[in-house]
Amino acid sequence: MSKTRVGIINVTGYAGSELARILHRHPDVEIAQVTGRSAAGKQLSEVFPHLLDADMEISPSLDDSVDFVFSALPHAASAEALSPFIEEDVRCVDISADFRLKDVNVFETWYKTAHPCPEYIENAVYGLPELHREDVKRSRLIANPGCYPTGTILGLAPAFDADIVETDVISDSKSGVSGAGRKGDVLYNFNEINDSMSAYGLSGHRHMPEMSQELSNLSRHGEVKVTFVPHLAPMTRGILGTHYATLTNGISQQETTDLYREFYADEPFVRVVGSAPSTKETWGSNHILINVNVDAYSGRLIVVTALDNLVKGAAGAGVQNMNLMLGLPEATGLEGLAIYP
Amino acid sequence: MSKTRVGIINVTGYAGSELARILHRHPDVEIAQVTGRSAAGKQLSEVFPHLLDADMEISPSLDDSVDFVFSALPHAASAEALSPFIEEDVRCVDISADFRLKDVNVFETWYKTAHPCPEYIENAVYGLPELHREDVKRSRLIANPGCYPTGTILGLAPAFDADIVETDVISDSKSGVSGAGRKGDVLYNFNEINDSMSAYGLSGHRHMPEMSQELSNLSRHGEVKVTFVPHLAPMTRGILGTHYATLTNGISQQETTDLYREFYADEPFVRVVGSAPSTKETWGSNHILINVNVDAYSGRLIVVTALDNLVKGAAGAGVQNMNLMLGLPEATGLEGLAIYP
Amino acid sequence: MSKTRVGIINVTGYAGSELARILHRHPDVEIAQVTGRSAAGKQLSEVFPHLLDADMEISPSLDDSVDFVFSALPHAASAEALSPFIEEDVRCVDISADFRLKDVNVFETWYKTAHPCPEYIENAVYGLPELHREDVKRSRLIANPGCYPTGTILGLAPAFDADIVETDVISDSKSGVSGAGRKGDVLYNFNEINDSMSAYGLSGHRHMPEMSQELSNLSRHGEVKVTFVPHLAPMTRGILGTHYATLTNGISQQETTDLYREFYADEPFVRVVGSAPSTKETWGSNHILINVNVDAYSGRLIVVTALDNLVKGAAGAGVQNMNLMLGLPEATGLEGLAIYP
Amino acid sequence: MSKTRVGIINVTGYAGSELARILHRHPDVEIAQVTGRSAAGKQLSEVFPHLLDADMEISPSLDDSVDFVFSALPHAASAEALSPFIEEDVRCVDISADFRLKDVNVFETWYKTAHPCPEYIENAVYGLPELHREDVKRSRLIANPGCYPTGTILGLAPAFDADIVETDVISDSKSGVSGAGRKGDVLYNFNEINDSMSAYGLSGHRHMPEMSQELSNLSRHGEVKVTFVPHLAPMTRGILGTHYATLTNGISQQETTDLYREFYADEPFVRVVGSAPSTKETWGSNHILINVNVDAYSGRLIVVTALDNLVKGAAGAGVQNMNLMLGLPEATGLEGLAIYP
Repeated sequence: MSKTRVGIINVTGYAGSELARILHRHPDVEIAQVTGRSAAGKQLSEVFPHLLDADMEISPSLDDSVDFVFSALPHAASAEALSPFIEEDVRCVDISADFRLKDVNVFETWYKTAHPCPEYIENAVYGLPELHREDVKRSRLIANPGCYPTGTILGLAPAFDADIVETDVISDSKSGVSGAGRKGDVLYNFNEINDSMSAYGLSGHRHMPEMSQELSNLSRHGEVKVTFVPHLAPMTRGILGTHYATLTNGISQQETTDLYREFYADEPFVRVVGSAPSTKETWGSNHILINVNVDAYSGRLIVVTALDNLVKGAAGAGVQNMNLMLGLPEATGLEGLAIYP
Repeated sequence: MSKTRVGIINVTGYAGSELARILHRHPDVEIAQVTGRSAAGKQLSEVFPHLLDADMEISPSLDDSVDFVFSALPHAASAEALSPFIEEDVRCVDISADFRLKDVNVFETWYKTAHPCPEYIENAVYGLPELHREDVKRSRLIANPGCYPTGTILGLAPAFDADIVETDVISDSKSGVSGAGRKGDVLYNFNEINDSMSAYGLSGHRHMPEMSQELSNLSRHGEVKVTFVPHLAPMTRGILGTHYATLTNGISQQETTDLYREFYADEPFVRVVGSAPSTKETWGSNHILINVNVDAYSGRLIVVTALDNLVKGAAGAGVQNMNLMLGLPEATGLEGLAIYP
Repeated sequence: MSKTRVGIINVTGYAGSELARILHRHPDVEIAQVTGRSAAGKQLSEVFPHLLDADMEISPSLDDSVDFVFSALPHAASAEALSPFIEEDVRCVDISADFRLKDVNVFETWYKTAHPCPEYIENAVYGLPELHREDVKRSRLIANPGCYPTGTILGLAPAFDADIVETDVISDSKSGVSGAGRKGDVLYNFNEINDSMSAYGLSGHRHMPEMSQELSNLSRHGEVKVTFVPHLAPMTRGILGTHYATLTNGISQQETTDLYREFYADEPFVRVVGSAPSTKETWGSNHILINVNVDAYSGRLIVVTALDNLVKGAAGAGVQNMNLMLGLPEATGLEGLAIYP
Repeated sequence: MSKTRVGIINVTGYAGSELARILHRHPDVEIAQVTGRSAAGKQLSEVFPHLLDADMEISPSLDDSVDFVFSALPHAASAEALSPFIEEDVRCVDISADFRLKDVNVFETWYKTAHPCPEYIENAVYGLPELHREDVKRSRLIANPGCYPTGTILGLAPAFDADIVETDVISDSKSGVSGAGRKGDVLYNFNEINDSMSAYGLSGHRHMPEMSQELSNLSRHGEVKVTFVPHLAPMTRGILGTHYATLTNGISQQETTDLYREFYADEPFVRVVGSAPSTKETWGSNHILINVNVDAYSGRLIVVTALDNLVKGAAGAGVQNMNLMLGLPEATGLEGLAIYP
């Protein structure tokens, strides 16, 4: 069987280079072309020495020799770059936010820009296989979930599915700095970040509407309101999410854990674990670890989630979606365990 | 005026050595004696090379030549070691938890040990000058607050004082690893902690009852329930606390900030800041930074606090209390700005 | 073809768990048994949650059902545990230092213990395939090189082979903390290590005689003296070695680089790179990056090497050796690119 | 006595803000004005929240109301900005490199720019009090030493003074990232630096000629050649220097340590310590720690130095020089012990 020829638009960010790393070891696809804006003409290994064995020239743009496209461009630019491929019915995974929100007005409010091609939103599938596997398989255009929403949605989905919590929830999430991208900005200078924690986005963060959209779909009581506070932690990879919801009944710790275990029983990349996970346990792997706690004193459900924001939160999820779209075993190329310590 | 002769019991932990660092530059006291269990007989600079200019021999115990005692021993051991000094009416600051909880049963439940001298609890003052300044001045025995409670109580006190929030609150706190002490334990080995976030204490943490005790004192609606989830962040110092409370009325962002600013108007070490602080901005200083946010969408108050757990969260607060007890200007020896970056 | 049944003695350290991680994805072997001293009876995933998909019970010892043995025990204990397998002619890779030094007196001087089975030293092969590939293929007992020596020997081997440097060299090496093992020791407590650099072993480090032994074999002018100063860097993985040697002739930068490139032309895991590497570029991969500099001003050769101490410096090299011993393609199971950033 | 009115040019970098932090607690001077290029008009606390208690408006430039000037501008810009003050005979400390090298040609070769005012070089004093104290006292213009040279020169000066080493030495130095300044450059992005070590400047670094100039002054055998390789370590502050020199005679460990102790016997900020120091032991303090080792096997002297690059390596040394120039006790305002851990 000939390998699927994959193109990566904007390989020069962290999500793009992570796609290259993962796909390099994927047995059923080959990386046919990669693009990068300012880096066009350079070798991939000049920008990313760790990709030395996956070396190739960076192109200014993809041509029509590719069978499958990933875009790791920022929002708006991404939809624009994908447009011609969508038009030609080439299967696409968009790592950006452009096709995640079903309501284009919500997108335009939060992202403060006009959507370049709202006509494609309807057919895009929100690429969380744990919730939309069959749709992903049939889709030609995947909106890959945001890194924070992946943790929050998977952390709370079983609770909304089982109708055990109220619709007003809190996501206190702590992210590694790679989530902010590969930027030359004094805000992300090592000295400013190292050995320090901070909150941000207190007046609203763009990932919140995604969380609300997906959890509301599962809710039997209308819109789910998410109070979402992201934090910057002095680490490169990883998102630890601590989620607080009010239980609507006296469900026990054991029942809740069982309910979660059952919900995710057949999932290749979700593990409901018995003690609080650390993000390091997911470094470089496509797993999400979920730990469920019932606090009887306050009547709260506290769910802790850990994942690698560049893998399950971006490139790994993208490859998982690609596998489903191509009819391949879902875990192909994603078998690697986390690098620890 | 002759200098007050201070003794430090258990100088060999992080709170103890931080006391030595701060007191070394204090103009009105001298460090007369320091003790350390296994290190007795050694020079202080053998254990802590950074204290080279404050060198002295570590004693097995304090003698009666000291006028003022700090204990940085673990709970139970601390009360026991302080007993003879309390008995002799020597002024004491206990960095441990032994005298913080007014109800000895609550202490014994959470700390799983008999209290060595419950008879002294009544006269002990919870050493948060921002709430109990006059009592601190008159006290002979100070229960220095826990590091986490300092952030949570100061972060929420103005809201309870102004009666603008419900009594059920959440403290999602992220601490540097020095909070766990100077331990040889694989759990705190660099490799296990570095580049990783984790939650812990999900089944209950000892600092919660302190928070509840102090906030309940301020509440006009009875007991304050605190859902407290501590987290370990890959940094040495600092606690960032993110606190969530439900507003009981439609108070605005500006009104809330004003209310906080007024509450802390004369405080030498509390700053209500206009944007979310980072813990690094408090490294080595006795300040706590507080940022107040009203989330109109969810009707929540979100308060972010940042402090250095070894200074305002331990040794610095201890010196602040000592200054008040000795009738000195409250900020003496604590004028240093944070070391940044 | 049935898979080779591999046993790992002492899986509970960092080298042992790294072996499990790598072998889990190796297509031609299966992990048949793993041992751990205090952890016997536990599941592997209890000790290492990141190995959840490679779960199995930890045994007190290996039985005779294994076809191939890795030992990741400390020195002396390792040789003792391997003895019965060596006796039975089971192929073994010893990650410890027990069989590295050909002169048992040198071993006993540096390791301050009697060697448990010096009779096996003669047949052991120093497992650096780049220098001893054919011997490795034929060997039944491999002494896997130390992490520091791997960088220093590979960094200087081409220079000694080409006879361009004097025999008195310096290795200034900076290691991540995982090199010190998974220990509960206050020296390696996060707080003590974080944000700090230090030198150690200034009165002599055990890895020096290995460097000297292997480089002396290549030297045409007798014994190579290595001044080796190891340093602890505040990072988990990686060794950066900076090596200084005096050039014996006026060889140019280009000639030296060419000479290195030729020496390593067919090596699957050695890359001679054109600019100074960072250790992060090797995180989790079996590659070593080598950068060669001729300093005409001082007449010195300066060679910078970067590798992952747990992969090319321990477990990865072990698997590379295993592949050669089993007649498999040398890179099997080691194809993963580094995880960056 | 009225306080000296100090101006800081370019307070918005790390050296500038560190000057503000230290001078804020200095009893004999007041910070009269501070400048910053793009930040003019802002409050100091907007740029640096940790300076909240030292708040003032940032000016576009200093006026003539200041009695003493520090410049923390980059080279060339610094000399240009200082020119009018030098002209008016206002005492100046230049943190930049502009007046460090006595030979303007050497400056122009290494810094690749014309010197804006070479006429002032002759009267400038290289501000290392340990070597030039009396000249510093009399000087009106101090060239504050570079951060790396401070460690290397102080680490090797006693050996050259005592004539025990050959003139060809190696400085392998590892610096925290604050040495690279407060920059928005992807090279210093947290993700790129964190958990990684790298060498740089392998084709020559600007700090080398300073080292050579000062050590050559002490040498009795002509020019000292320094092979200097700087490294970037994943930490914010600190420089650990490991220095290698060839001993010319059979001097013992004890004799060498004694010689160093005697050389620095009266120095307030130099400590010759008995074991290898870590940079963390100097965090925020003006001390340099020096550890001396004689390696009899190789006949080498190995000197390890540790200092805080922003204090003894920049702002602290500047204040030490200022104290001498103003006739104040040398340690005024610099009494703080290191913040540890």
